[in-house]
Amino acid sequence: MLNDFFYAKNIAVIGVSKDSSKVGHVIFRNFIDSEFEGSVFAVNKNADIILNHPVYKTVLDIKEKIDLGIIAVPAKFVLKTVEECAKKKIKDLVIITAGFEEIGNFQLKNKLKALLKKYKINVIGPNCLGVYNAYTGIDSLFLPRSRLKRPEHGFISFVSQSGALGSAILDFAAKEGYGISKFVSYGNGINIDESDIIEYLGKDNHTKVICLYIEGVKDGKKFLKVCKEVSKHKPIIAIKGGVSEAGNKAALSHTGSLAGTAEIYKGAFKQGGIIEAESLEDLFNFARVFEKCLRPKGNNVQIITNGGGYGIISIDALSKYPLSVAKLSGKTIKELKKVFPPLVIIKNPMDLIGDADTNRYKLAIEACIKDENIDILFIVLLYQTPLITPDIIDMVSEYKDRKTIIVVSTGGEFTEVLAKSLEKNNIPSFQFPEKAMKALSKLVEYYNPSLKTSKN
Amino acid sequence: MLNDFFYAKNIAVIGVSKDSSKVGHVIFRNFIDSEFEGSVFAVNKNADIILNHPVYKTVLDIKEKIDLGIIAVPAKFVLKTVEECAKKKIKDLVIITAGFEEIGNFQLKNKLKALLKKYKINVIGPNCLGVYNAYTGIDSLFLPRSRLKRPEHGFISFVSQSGALGSAILDFAAKEGYGISKFVSYGNGINIDESDIIEYLGKDNHTKVICLYIEGVKDGKKFLKVCKEVSKHKPIIAIKGGVSEAGNKAALSHTGSLAGTAEIYKGAFKQGGIIEAESLEDLFNFARVFEKCLRPKGNNVQIITNGGGYGIISIDALSKYPLSVAKLSGKTIKELKKVFPPLVIIKNPMDLIGDADTNRYKLAIEACIKDENIDILFIVLLYQTPLITPDIIDMVSEYKDRKTIIVVSTGGEFTEVLAKSLEKNNIPSFQFPEKAMKALSKLVEYYNPSLKTSKN
Repeated sequence: MLNDFFYAKNIAVIGVSKDSSKVGHVIFRNFIDSEFEGSVFAVNKNADIILNHPVYKTVLDIKEKIDLGIIAVPAKFVLKTVEECAKKKIKDLVIITAGFEEIGNFQLKNKLKALLKKYKINVIGPNCLGVYNAYTGIDSLFLPRSRLKRPEHGFISFVSQSGALGSAILDFAAKEGYGISKFVSYGNGINIDESDIIEYLGKDNHTKVICLYIEGVKDGKKFLKVCKEVSKHKPIIAIKGGVSEAGNKAALSHTGSLAGTAEIYKGAFKQGGIIEAESLEDLFNFARVFEKCLRPKGNNVQIITNGGGYGIISIDALSKYPLSVAKLSGKTIKELKKVFPPLVIIKNPMDLIGDADTNRYKLAIEACIKDENIDILFIVLLYQTPLITPDIIDMVSEYKDRKTIIVVSTGGEFTEVLAKSLEKNNIPSFQFPEKAMKALSKLVEYYNPSLKTSKN
Repeated sequence: MLNDFFYAKNIAVIGVSKDSSKVGHVIFRNFIDSEFEGSVFAVNKNADIILNHPVYKTVLDIKEKIDLGIIAVPAKFVLKTVEECAKKKIKDLVIITAGFEEIGNFQLKNKLKALLKKYKINVIGPNCLGVYNAYTGIDSLFLPRSRLKRPEHGFISFVSQSGALGSAILDFAAKEGYGISKFVSYGNGINIDESDIIEYLGKDNHTKVICLYIEGVKDGKKFLKVCKEVSKHKPIIAIKGGVSEAGNKAALSHTGSLAGTAEIYKGAFKQGGIIEAESLEDLFNFARVFEKCLRPKGNNVQIITNGGGYGIISIDALSKYPLSVAKLSGKTIKELKKVFPPLVIIKNPMDLIGDADTNRYKLAIEACIKDENIDILFIVLLYQTPLITPDIIDMVSEYKDRKTIIVVSTGGEFTEVLAKSLEKNNIPSFQFPEKAMKALSKLVEYYNPSLKTSKN
């Protein structure tokens, strides 16, 4: 049902101003600058040429069939524009324009709603940023690329009730090198709501994880039903805005959402199989682990490190979650004793010490991969020590399909470059052990729900 | 007492190998590459010239008085080297060399200890990275600058029982643009321990905040006494490695520390006035706020934002801590109503909405600075929107001496550049609201200890 929002071939941007700072203009320019392979048409009653492209007076002047219309005209022209789109048989619209119930204009909202019903038009919006698909270049975000870098394509999709929040997060994801599949800011959600989008993403092959920022939901029953179904085969991670009393009040001013208390939401999230993130940062950390990691067979974690202190704070972090300190098998210990210098500590954490090189890590990883007592490898890799060479990235990456692996590296530019390479090779790489362990625990809980309450 | 470790004029590096990968060589080269204005002398029995510098057979061959010796000879030569240093009347030594009690060699440890007592020599180490002073360029870290970037000078000092952990954190601080004053990795702490260093930093004018990573303390009573005294006028923020049972065991293998249970340490930290950080990241986040922020008069926080969702998650975060949602005075509301467009929400959070520019922020900040109901400004500044121009950095920075201000900006490269500028102007800038609020709460608690338990 929502396919045209992400895969349309012919798109009309309606309300493309000559003024380069205006919303419609920015959207049109973003299409021209993107790798979008379809055709994009500019519509504006009062212009002939914009950015060297012909401008159509109305959508009706376009000869080609239009799969998706993006409306950025002032609120007072929206109804008329929708009528024209209906005549042109456009079935799917993103309405960027604000000025409906969020400012108290319920009359306009109701008229629009009736119109959409009459013509059976699907709308994302109004009062939103709309859609972004990293695979096709479809992009209705009205923020210039110089301000908001678009992330590369990956398998995390993000649905946000708040446009500004969503765009800040996209920009952040782009910088960090996190891959995104689809992004939707659905604003007032006049006839497509969060549940419809989640349902669609549940079936989308380019989406492995669904992330959600919501302040409230339109239809709680529908939301729960959809999430329950989707979360069975695809993780849904959500952050709820307005969980506090003060936040609840603020949400009412922001999106008109009756946010509900923290307890009600916690219960609903649990029922819907939704993984709750307590912070925006956690949201992405959890998502990356789900996107990239192999499904862990159990909760036995082996820590490998080249810094003793990091091993200790990692295991301290582990102890906060329903994760278990793996016990190396006698065979593994015996094998490693043969090949390691005497100062290496063959325990958990396994401390390869400061002079560890790629080969010592390889020996350790190889042994742990073979050891059936271990389900997950938590590798601390401090790149500051001189014997660590960049070939360690490819070495570690080779094991990604053999066991669940997560890497932690704290440091500066050298570290950042290597960490991003790992991330590109589909090994999630974290700056700090505490966060990595938290994210890992969510992965383990999702695939082994019985561990949630019991703790080894 | 510890002054020469950070302000020595003449330094001897003892054990400077010709091999550029060896510890002594790296340390000597780091001195040459640094802005150290004193004189550095290389000592090695078997070389004449290294890196175009003359090499002395022993410290006794150096004519100049030596204020600080840095020893990087193999363990078996340490005692003899110390004897020579004693003859040369060097009173302060950093002993980098490992191979003492941490590998079970208690005999060597005891001999060294006796020797130091006999000659009244102060030692940092052995088995450590030693010292770094960003102001003088004194730097015994044996990690090359290509791997471990040195941070700029600032007012945060960091004491770490773990060398690798400390160096990773320094490298991270350098990348993020956080200023460091002094760093000490004291290893086995043979006669200078964590308490001595904390006491020294307590009196150091270049240190505003003391950060600590410890697995255990040598002398609990002394530690508490010193921390109690120092924390009265200077915040001490600590992260404790080995708080879990498994971590405790690992700490025993790592630094031989009997880490003690979490409860005991929590109690001791409280008694010593120490602010506990639960993660490495928190450690720095707390430190930056203490380093840069004005002392808040109370706990009334006003949130100003250009993204509604961010306002909501900020206030949700606020609600977790003993912070209070400030109530704008009637006068402020009246004034702002006159100058703001109708869609701006003049509440808390104050939502300046997506088309806010520098001037709208200025009006909001100015009014909140004047409003006596407000102690702290928590400013969300999303740089993705086109009307935000870089002059906003200087505008916000102008208010830094008028009230406690903290800024949150999530985003990509454009955001990062502007956030770093703010940080340079002494306004702490965070990527995510949850962390910023947490750090802020520590600041408020430190200056208003009565708020710790009560919650508005």
